[in-house]
Amino acid sequence: MVKGVVEYLTDNREALLKRLHEYLTIPSISTDSAYKEDVKDAARFTSEYLTEIGFNKVEILETKGHPLVFAEYNKAGENAPTVLFYGHYDVQPVDPIEEWESDPFNPNIRNGRIYARGASDDKGQVFMNLAVFEAYMKTKGKLPINVKVCIEGEEEIGSENLYDILIDNKEKFSADFVVISDSGMVAKNQPTILYGLKGFTGIEITVKGPDQDLHSGIYGGAVRNPIMALSHILASMKNDEEVITVEGFYDNVEPLSEEERELIKKVKGENYEETTGVKETVSEKGYDAKEHTMARPTFEINGIYGGYQGEGTKTIIPSTATAKITCRLVPGQDPNEIQQMLKNHIEKVKPSGVDVDIKLEKLSSKAYMVKPDHPLVQKAAACYKKAFQKETVFVRMGGSIPIVEWLDELYHIPVILLGFGTPDDRLHSPNESFPLDSFDKGMETLVYYWNEVGI
Amino acid sequence: MVKGVVEYLTDNREALLKRLHEYLTIPSISTDSAYKEDVKDAARFTSEYLTEIGFNKVEILETKGHPLVFAEYNKAGENAPTVLFYGHYDVQPVDPIEEWESDPFNPNIRNGRIYARGASDDKGQVFMNLAVFEAYMKTKGKLPINVKVCIEGEEEIGSENLYDILIDNKEKFSADFVVISDSGMVAKNQPTILYGLKGFTGIEITVKGPDQDLHSGIYGGAVRNPIMALSHILASMKNDEEVITVEGFYDNVEPLSEEERELIKKVKGENYEETTGVKETVSEKGYDAKEHTMARPTFEINGIYGGYQGEGTKTIIPSTATAKITCRLVPGQDPNEIQQMLKNHIEKVKPSGVDVDIKLEKLSSKAYMVKPDHPLVQKAAACYKKAFQKETVFVRMGGSIPIVEWLDELYHIPVILLGFGTPDDRLHSPNESFPLDSFDKGMETLVYYWNEVGI
Repeated sequence: MVKGVVEYLTDNREALLKRLHEYLTIPSISTDSAYKEDVKDAARFTSEYLTEIGFNKVEILETKGHPLVFAEYNKAGENAPTVLFYGHYDVQPVDPIEEWESDPFNPNIRNGRIYARGASDDKGQVFMNLAVFEAYMKTKGKLPINVKVCIEGEEEIGSENLYDILIDNKEKFSADFVVISDSGMVAKNQPTILYGLKGFTGIEITVKGPDQDLHSGIYGGAVRNPIMALSHILASMKNDEEVITVEGFYDNVEPLSEEERELIKKVKGENYEETTGVKETVSEKGYDAKEHTMARPTFEINGIYGGYQGEGTKTIIPSTATAKITCRLVPGQDPNEIQQMLKNHIEKVKPSGVDVDIKLEKLSSKAYMVKPDHPLVQKAAACYKKAFQKETVFVRMGGSIPIVEWLDELYHIPVILLGFGTPDDRLHSPNESFPLDSFDKGMETLVYYWNEVGI
Repeated sequence: MVKGVVEYLTDNREALLKRLHEYLTIPSISTDSAYKEDVKDAARFTSEYLTEIGFNKVEILETKGHPLVFAEYNKAGENAPTVLFYGHYDVQPVDPIEEWESDPFNPNIRNGRIYARGASDDKGQVFMNLAVFEAYMKTKGKLPINVKVCIEGEEEIGSENLYDILIDNKEKFSADFVVISDSGMVAKNQPTILYGLKGFTGIEITVKGPDQDLHSGIYGGAVRNPIMALSHILASMKNDEEVITVEGFYDNVEPLSEEERELIKKVKGENYEETTGVKETVSEKGYDAKEHTMARPTFEINGIYGGYQGEGTKTIIPSTATAKITCRLVPGQDPNEIQQMLKNHIEKVKPSGVDVDIKLEKLSSKAYMVKPDHPLVQKAAACYKKAFQKETVFVRMGGSIPIVEWLDELYHIPVILLGFGTPDDRLHSPNESFPLDSFDKGMETLVYYWNEVGI
């Protein structure tokens, strides 16, 4: 069935790259209203390509913000499964522009990579998927599966309107499983299955002491120092062995199985000392850095402030001190319950003489995980291996993708993350790029995958 | 001997206030170079007044910064003691100017107070001393003691050049004791002897983790969070009972005697809950707020910062976190030794996976204390009582005045702090003022005092 499809991609490589080039030329920066029309252009480009490929229903759905492109192909037959393919056509801003070696919206190929904003995240990977659909249609006249396409324009600004659209159009977006190409591989040309994402929650703590900053010579010894109070609270939440000491925090954490530990061992992870500059890694007692980042919950203080921050000395007792905390959660942990545990802990350990204000993070999400031995995952692993000629590794990621949790929550269907990015793609940074050989091998993987899971 | 002197001050009150008015009109803001000539004018005004009073040697000593006025009166005879009178003619800036109800450099009398920048700190109090010398000269033709006068123009900018001048002119400034009127009473018309000041030192701690801020989803679980490491360090330095837990910190602290505790009990201190807005005071275990602020060492975190401080959430592990700490010291504690103890403690408790940079505060000073039963102190207490018709209280202060420690260190002579300010004077703030009845009673106190300690 795949015969001719991969060849089509090879034979038409130049035309496809030219079309990708056009796509990347549109500055669809969703966060900056100055680019509102460009964002619309990118939606139009996407929908026109889908129409041209032969999707039998292509719509641009307006939202309160940027439009969402929806398309449907339902001619694979009743026996064929339906996949929901999700991606986004919006991109990050380009600042600092002076650090780009070529114009972010005038794609430039050098060193075997295509340099442009969105080359990897996510226009490039969306395009690869559409190109594979084109290849099937041009060579076979049909797709092996039924497809629903959802390409939004607000991923880089938190998918603000997507959740409501999914809720309001549950039937329209329903499918047997989901495929997303908006992630990466652990190393270039290292086939990688991302089978788990962490959940997310957070709180902000503000300790309030005196009404205004006080002279430390006059009031030192009479009032509780809010920064010291905050330090005591924070230090009580995670110990020196990186174990989170908040009551109940680990209660529902599913233990890391020996099978998963074996899978994680097989991943040649990054050399953290080299990429971060730390002298030694530090992880939760009983787990190494790879295990902790992939599969154990985390508690990080993202920011802290209070009192005088200028040069030299200002002898005050500050009025307030604030810390921002976020946690990455694993399967079993409920973000609302975790927030409540953090809150209870803080109220329990809070020293006398100060008040504590707690703000709960609204953008919470549960962790997502699909079993590595799920047939849809195993088939993906085999297709990666066939295309890249290398054994596939299985990883879980410390990061969170809200859409994944929403889809899981609404449809209870597997989400297969077929990412082809590499650690050097510089997402969100100057000089974003994507390697051309990953472009080729990634499309080849997708050709095999639709053949395997379709009919 | 005092007969006629107090009367002179009463009879000439209007002329004296007029002269004080002129003094306060000069905007001698030392920190702002735009006022350099005005600062010089204030020095000139001071020296002219001293000459007119009859000091037999009046000099303006140039420094790298603003000039210092020196004057000497040595005609009280060989048997009379010599006092060094210290004060400053420079003032704080006036910002925010819009909050002043009258021009800070056009003195205005209302509600029994004179409103002007410097009215209390310190031109007003310097002037009171000079007026009393004038009164003695005009009525008795002589002063009862030999006097050296040192009025500097750089107190509000840290007395930058004074220490070198004192070292270089040790003989010139030598005296039997020192009098300074640059402090206040615990309440209006409550005679107050300030017999102790705290010393001062500090450190700045910077915890360094990764080379740059890291994505908490990717690196959470692999590296030590610098803010959490800093929180652990800080929390280990003072416990919940406000006891400083740095090894050796209290080793040389002279214990608070029962006599001193009795003296402190007699002081009707401020209502801290009311003035600071805290719900309850918090002090070192075993000491109440008055005892701790006056007579026990303190450890305050003046500021902290690290990571993201903006609105909302940024999911990073920050590269660094910094805390600024200052301590107020009591007699027996050596600031250099204390800094070393803090440093040793931090290096001992520092968790793995991060580095710590420590900056030592340069402006350190030892505490100063004169025994409350010293005859020069007891005489001052009696004179206060006589002028204000109220029992004198004895206090120690949590603040530090560097000149006091320098004089103590260089000359080993008692420093008598004859301050007349009130808690409502709003030093360094808009609408600084000084009560006119304190002006009268303060000068009366000084008349009695020179008579008591002179011959």
